[in-house]
Amino acid sequence: MMFNPQIPPITIGMVLFPNLNQLEFTAPYEIFSHLPGAQIHRLAPTIDPIYSESGLPLIPDTPFEKAPHLDILFIPGGLGLSAKLEDAEFLGSLRKWGEEARYVTSIGDGALLLAAASLLKGYRATTDWSSLELLDLLGVEAVSQQIVVDRNRITASNITDGIPFALTIAYEMFGAEIVQEIKMRLDYNPAQLALNNSIATPSDAHARVKTDKQLLAKIRLKIIQQTIQQQAI
Amino acid sequence: MMFNPQIPPITIGMVLFPNLNQLEFTAPYEIFSHLPGAQIHRLAPTIDPIYSESGLPLIPDTPFEKAPHLDILFIPGGLGLSAKLEDAEFLGSLRKWGEEARYVTSIGDGALLLAAASLLKGYRATTDWSSLELLDLLGVEAVSQQIVVDRNRITASNITDGIPFALTIAYEMFGAEIVQEIKMRLDYNPAQLALNNSIATPSDAHARVKTDKQLLAKIRLKIIQQTIQQQAI
Repeated sequence: MMFNPQIPPITIGMVLFPNLNQLEFTAPYEIFSHLPGAQIHRLAPTIDPIYSESGLPLIPDTPFEKAPHLDILFIPGGLGLSAKLEDAEFLGSLRKWGEEARYVTSIGDGALLLAAASLLKGYRATTDWSSLELLDLLGVEAVSQQIVVDRNRITASNITDGIPFALTIAYEMFGAEIVQEIKMRLDYNPAQLALNNSIATPSDAHARVKTDKQLLAKIRLKIIQQTIQQQAI
Repeated sequence: MMFNPQIPPITIGMVLFPNLNQLEFTAPYEIFSHLPGAQIHRLAPTIDPIYSESGLPLIPDTPFEKAPHLDILFIPGGLGLSAKLEDAEFLGSLRKWGEEARYVTSIGDGALLLAAASLLKGYRATTDWSSLELLDLLGVEAVSQQIVVDRNRITASNITDGIPFALTIAYEMFGAEIVQEIKMRLDYNPAQLALNNSIATPSDAHARVKTDKQLLAKIRLKIIQQTIQQQAI
C-alpha cells in the first residue's frame, strides 16, 4: 500500500530463522503488503541474509533488539525450526512481542514455536499433521483444520495455506471489503470475481482496482504499439 | 532435493527484474526446488538485490552473461514489467534461452515478456485478464484459462496460481508420482492426501515422505520433552 498519512500504520513483524520454509513467509508477505497502513518488519537476531530450506536467501531489515511494538506477530515454519525450540533468547523475544501484539499468528509447524514461547496456552490452534501431537504436548488444544481463529490467535496448518491464512487476518482487522479488494488485485478466485463483476453496481474497491489495471494496460499498449511500429520500419 | 550423482541435473532459470511480483517468483521456486536434479539459477543482469513491487529484496545468483543452457526458462510478472517491454537486451537474452530451453514458462503478465521476445508466436498462452488483449496484439493466441500447456510452452494466468502451475511442469517432465510426492511434502490438497493415505499399499513416495516427517517429529519430541523437564526442575 502506498503511504497515506490519514491511514494509521499497522506494524507487522515477520520472523525469519535459518532453514525456514520460504513460501510460508512470502505468501502471507504478499497479502500483508496490501493491508492499509502496513509496515512490515522482517525480524531476525541480525540483518545477515537467511537461507530458506530450499536455498532462497531472504534479507531481514530489523534486528530483534530494534523491533517496534507489533500489531501482528507472524512466524513461519520449516525444517530449521527444531533448533529454535531450544533457543531461549529467540523464544523470549517471541513471548515479549506476542504478549503485546493485537494478533499472534503462524503457518505450518511455526505454531510449535508460538507454543514453546507460551503464547498458545489455553488456545485452540492448528499446525501441519505431523506436528499436531507435539502441539498437544506443549499444552495447546491442537485442531486438525486448515485455519483456526481463537480470539486473537490465528494459525494455519499447511505451507500452501499462506494466502487464505493472511486473508483471514485481513478480514479480522479490516472486514470484507478490504479482502475483496486484495483478492481482485491478486486475481484470486477468478470464478468468484467474475460473478462479482457481473453485479450491476460494483463497489468502490472494484472500481479502483479495475481503473488501476486498465491504466497499466493502456501504458503497456503504447509501449507495445511503438515496438511493433519500430519493427515494421 | 539433495544432491544425487545418479540423477541428471536439470537447470532452471528464473528471471528477476525490478518491481516483479515476488509471489509469482517464490511460489514456483518452492515447487521447482523439489524437482529431481533441480539446479535453480536466479537470473538478472547483475547480482545486485532486486526489490519486488511489495518491497521484498530478492538476491540473484547468476548474472545474465553467465547463464548456462536452461532446461526450464521461467519469468514472473509484476508492475515493473512495463520497462522491460522496451529493453531490447533483456528481451534478447530471453529469446536466446527460450529458443534452446526444453520448457518456456511464465505466470501472470510475465507472458507479455515471452511474447515481446517472440517466444510465443504460433502458440496458445494465457496471462492475467487485464493483459489478454495485449497478448493477442503481440501475435499470440491468448486464452482466458488458469493454466495453458501448448507443446513446451506453459503459462499461468494469476499471481495465486504458482503452485498448480509449477506442479503442471513437474507432471510434464517427471509424471504423476513426483507430483504426488511434492504435494505430500507440502501438505497440498490435504483432503485428497487423506484419501490416498487410506489406500492399503502406499506408494514408495508416500512411505518416504511419511518416514521423513515422522523422523523430524521424533527429534522435536525429544527437544520438547527436555524443555518441559527443565521447566519442571
